[in-house]
Amino acid sequence: MRLSTRNQLRATVQEVTEGSVMATVKLALGDGQTMTAAVTREAVADLGLAPGDAVTVLVKATEVMLGKE
Amino acid sequence: MRLSTRNQLRATVQEVTEGSVMATVKLALGDGQTMTAAVTREAVADLGLAPGDAVTVLVKATEVMLGKE
Amino acid sequence: MRLSTRNQLRATVQEVTEGSVMATVKLALGDGQTMTAAVTREAVADLGLAPGDAVTVLVKATEVMLGKE
Amino acid sequence: MRLSTRNQLRATVQEVTEGSVMATVKLALGDGQTMTAAVTREAVADLGLAPGDAVTVLVKATEVMLGKE
Amino acid sequence: MRLSTRNQLRATVQEVTEGSVMATVKLALGDGQTMTAAVTREAVADLGLAPGDAVTVLVKATEVMLGKE
Amino acid sequence: MRLSTRNQLRATVQEVTEGSVMATVKLALGDGQTMTAAVTREAVADLGLAPGDAVTVLVKATEVMLGKE
Repeated sequence: MRLSTRNQLRATVQEVTEGSVMATVKLALGDGQTMTAAVTREAVADLGLAPGDAVTVLVKATEVMLGKE
Repeated sequence: MRLSTRNQLRATVQEVTEGSVMATVKLALGDGQTMTAAVTREAVADLGLAPGDAVTVLVKATEVMLGKE
Repeated sequence: MRLSTRNQLRATVQEVTEGSVMATVKLALGDGQTMTAAVTREAVADLGLAPGDAVTVLVKATEVMLGKE
Repeated sequence: MRLSTRNQLRATVQEVTEGSVMATVKLALGDGQTMTAAVTREAVADLGLAPGDAVTVLVKATEVMLGKE
Repeated sequence: MRLSTRNQLRATVQEVTEGSVMATVKLALGDGQTMTAAVTREAVADLGLAPGDAVTVLVKATEVMLGKE
Repeated sequence: MRLSTRNQLRATVQEVTEGSVMATVKLALGDGQTMTAAVTREAVADLGLAPGDAVTVLVKATEVMLGKE
């Protein structure tokens, strides 16, 4: 399935922290920069997310903001 | 100002396409991966965004999704 | 690719309206209810979206609100 | 109050799972498709959400993504 | 209809700028602070939004970020 | 750093409620209206958010909806 989602970055799962209904997933990009995703705990279980997994980080273009010095 | 926003990536502006009220900004990350931001045209003017600009890409953790093969 | 995105609805494209950088896509669900997606014009071109297309509507769970009478 | 929110779907609450500050709500649409909303626990209490409730699912058009085979 | 949406602010429309498919709406809060909403052009037409209108600004709690000096 | 984020409101933290991975922050605007932010617990710790803190509330324009009677 091809997605309208403009941002699709290759990343590796570093750490998964599960809360009661939400979870946070730490991710490493190829250039060493890191990202954090807050998803439902159900999604983590559904995908079987664990450290070391190769994943695609997806972000809709309308959700991206920019900062400039 | 420190931000609650968990995702702050260094990037370079590649291209700015301005529409009537919105604009899209193409961005290059350090590892060659690209991103697209859809922001208001006013924001582009306000920051004076142009190709070559060093910017910070900001995405709230709750906006990040994951895909796994 | 399996997605963390909790909401994945089957729908049919009814109408595509392209603006300068954004586009709106009207969608019909199986029970006759309709939805609207605002995506980049580039995404519409990339997926070749046109009336009659069978698509999957994707919405992250954190983006869903509820109203009750 | 009329809303700018383009997506307003009729649904029935199937299950409410409350975490410490967030909650997930499982919803059934008329055609059998299901949705999940991640809202604050306070919102669940405020609306008194419980299985069987008729609700309106609200999603802003800019939050909708599309996938196509 | 009561909404799960945690942020509901009273505001007055100051200016509406319509693009091809999107529109931006400038808003004034009671304490003089201003806000901007980017909604579909269809939503502006549907609500008949015009300067001087009393409106409610709606923002889901998961969309709010914080900055601290 | 200047931000593309169109909505930047001055507010004061009233209450912080920490869950397992998420947290909600109650905020007071200058005109007495209140807001709620749902951010990661990590962000709360990172900014050291506590009642009485002067903060900037940040909301992307594409996340703002409007209601009209």
